[in-house]
Amino acid sequence: MADALKIGVAGLGTVGASLVRILQQRANALAVACGRSIQVTAVSARSRDKDRGISMDGIAWFDDPAEMARDADIDVFVELIGGAEGSADLSVRAALNRGLHVVTANKALLARCGVELAQMAEAKGVLLNYEAAVAGGIPVIKTLRESLTGNNFSRIYGIMNGTCNYILTRMEKESLTFEACLQEAQRLGYAEADPTFDIEGNDTAHKLSILTTLAFGSEIAADSIYLEGISNISIEDIHAARDLGYRIKLLGVAQRTESGIEQRVHPTMVPLDSVIAQVDGVTNAVALESDILGELLMVGPGAGGNATASAVLGDITDIAKSRPGAQKVPVLGRPAHLLEPYRQAAMQSHEGGYFIRLTVQDRTGVFASIASNMAANDISLESIVQHSKQAARPGQHQTIILVTHATMENAVRRAVAAIKQEGYLVGEPQVIRIERPKG
Amino acid sequence: MADALKIGVAGLGTVGASLVRILQQRANALAVACGRSIQVTAVSARSRDKDRGISMDGIAWFDDPAEMARDADIDVFVELIGGAEGSADLSVRAALNRGLHVVTANKALLARCGVELAQMAEAKGVLLNYEAAVAGGIPVIKTLRESLTGNNFSRIYGIMNGTCNYILTRMEKESLTFEACLQEAQRLGYAEADPTFDIEGNDTAHKLSILTTLAFGSEIAADSIYLEGISNISIEDIHAARDLGYRIKLLGVAQRTESGIEQRVHPTMVPLDSVIAQVDGVTNAVALESDILGELLMVGPGAGGNATASAVLGDITDIAKSRPGAQKVPVLGRPAHLLEPYRQAAMQSHEGGYFIRLTVQDRTGVFASIASNMAANDISLESIVQHSKQAARPGQHQTIILVTHATMENAVRRAVAAIKQEGYLVGEPQVIRIERPKG
Repeated sequence: MADALKIGVAGLGTVGASLVRILQQRANALAVACGRSIQVTAVSARSRDKDRGISMDGIAWFDDPAEMARDADIDVFVELIGGAEGSADLSVRAALNRGLHVVTANKALLARCGVELAQMAEAKGVLLNYEAAVAGGIPVIKTLRESLTGNNFSRIYGIMNGTCNYILTRMEKESLTFEACLQEAQRLGYAEADPTFDIEGNDTAHKLSILTTLAFGSEIAADSIYLEGISNISIEDIHAARDLGYRIKLLGVAQRTESGIEQRVHPTMVPLDSVIAQVDGVTNAVALESDILGELLMVGPGAGGNATASAVLGDITDIAKSRPGAQKVPVLGRPAHLLEPYRQAAMQSHEGGYFIRLTVQDRTGVFASIASNMAANDISLESIVQHSKQAARPGQHQTIILVTHATMENAVRRAVAAIKQEGYLVGEPQVIRIERPKG
Repeated sequence: MADALKIGVAGLGTVGASLVRILQQRANALAVACGRSIQVTAVSARSRDKDRGISMDGIAWFDDPAEMARDADIDVFVELIGGAEGSADLSVRAALNRGLHVVTANKALLARCGVELAQMAEAKGVLLNYEAAVAGGIPVIKTLRESLTGNNFSRIYGIMNGTCNYILTRMEKESLTFEACLQEAQRLGYAEADPTFDIEGNDTAHKLSILTTLAFGSEIAADSIYLEGISNISIEDIHAARDLGYRIKLLGVAQRTESGIEQRVHPTMVPLDSVIAQVDGVTNAVALESDILGELLMVGPGAGGNATASAVLGDITDIAKSRPGAQKVPVLGRPAHLLEPYRQAAMQSHEGGYFIRLTVQDRTGVFASIASNMAANDISLESIVQHSKQAARPGQHQTIILVTHATMENAVRRAVAAIKQEGYLVGEPQVIRIERPKG
């Protein structure tokens, strides 16, 4: 049997503690599967005294993760600190500079400087694995990076934020408001005290940017993503979606178009009978559409200590099974210096179906005015319905729901702006994009 | 750049021809991703003259695949001949004996002698990859073998035969009989002229046996699988399932129990609102349940030239990215000599919910008799309903549907046998097992 693979774990939160426990408890089974044993020989965390249910025998302690990366007796540096800057960034760079393999779950770091880190890893001939950075336990990185090499992708999309999916699921199932479900998610630990990063789509955007690079071979462009969160989704939208045969999910979507690559994160109507519409609660899902394979959908836990630790463990066992420097999986699917510049498709040119909900004053000619504004912008309608169940009484507000056939984003924006000028709208119009599986 | 990886392809049917075309057309992109070029240098098939849309420049032709395996100038032998014996078997053994890497899509061959072939590959230090053998384009082999190393599995199950899923989907959607849908499947090329192997579950069983070994670390035991096909599923069953909130799918299921490992292939009721219930038509799906990750479900194309070629291509690019002899992924998840003997759980001890459909003569006391026979066997009922929509007129037959809570298979068999003795049954009782996602 080959020498043991020595692991240093930086960050002993839920994921890090789970990982070390699993590596210790399953040492024998892992040694059988990998042909060598895997030993945790160093750890680094903030508080040394906390009881994490881990045996510290034979494990060196470092207060500073960068010092651990530079000096510890390890072959693999596992970064579970998190954050795009600071000690996560410093320690990963130190590890790569030293020629250590690196495993990280840090989507923010990769979104910010993944290409640079990939170049460092490739220059040193080491592996940089990051399965846990996107969609937790779902092996989407390995699938894109290894299984689907040679495929040309047309679109990838997914539910990549459990907090948002939990909130949207609860809103629909219990007819609760966004605020009520957010509070519940916070109480259950599914949402942070400051939930902005999740509910406004930034977390999904980080993950999407990594998948975009793997699928389309372009440089990571996390700052060029169109972002809309779920905080203005109302229970009325969810009910109207359901009546029309749709369900609302926060999707991250990357799509190849003639003018470049679209990257967008927004609330999305998906058909009620699609597989992805059934993905409930904190579960994640990622769909990959390519020319050779067709469509592949993976559904699984997107977060949580154990599920994330499972992904990190897979990255570590991959390293344990290969001989040092022998496996040449390019970090980002192709060598980092061969990635193409990201060519951004303008959101104005996005083409798709749209759901538009308008609250209007009940007066003569409103229907006709809306319809003619749509026609004036070449928007063809799949349906136009008055949504309220009972007939509105004169003087009341009415809700009108439009669903368009495939049309251009800028046409919809122009039409909605024109309708706003007409003076009969009450409040802001709601516009939600529709996304259909390839099928 | 390293030397080119030389590929010999045995079998130029739909998959083989797709594969060679893709390797030729995407040569540049593949070379970038793999850090070396991949060249098809030899092929073998039955008919040399057939036009397959492939350039034969620089490709040596072999009439005999075993001869190609022994003599051709190749690094990787790709077996796409099919069949558990004969030239597929002979040529794969010849290739492994020579120390070539082998890629195969041959589930029947692996089900019959996969452990032996794994031992040969491991003795020579070569890779034996077979992603396409199970669930076509879904990367379930790689996920089990690499991503989830260290997980302990409790259950794996899936829709692994597109023919059966197509037929069941059509029966439900169009209210057609099994026979009508089978004929349609044959006309569309989704079913063979002799469909027995697909519709009676043997094909699913082959695939399941491979997944069982990867998940549970036991020797392949394809002959120890409980088998029930879909040919006696009626449209009445499908409608009754739907009314009760279920859908019928042919599942392969492997499950760890106290008495051993269950392997079973049978028509199965899955909850209508589960993700797997939405998997329609020829699409496949595989669910993996393990203690660290939780549940992972993968949905994708299970067959077809391109989807299968995509899986074969992933296997080839994995070899291209590694240095010869450098990567030590055990063929079956752990070294073949460390696989445990398969310990079969008796089907009689299977525990789960059951759907039981009885057609009975309409006479006094039948309901009571059925209920007391169930009670006598300690079977607790979730529901017992008379299924016909209109009230039955006296003298007519009635349909009675029972759904049980979790119970033992042998209790159900005893109860059904006792009910048959009562003399009021018309025709055979229908018994369908219920399977619930972990959720």
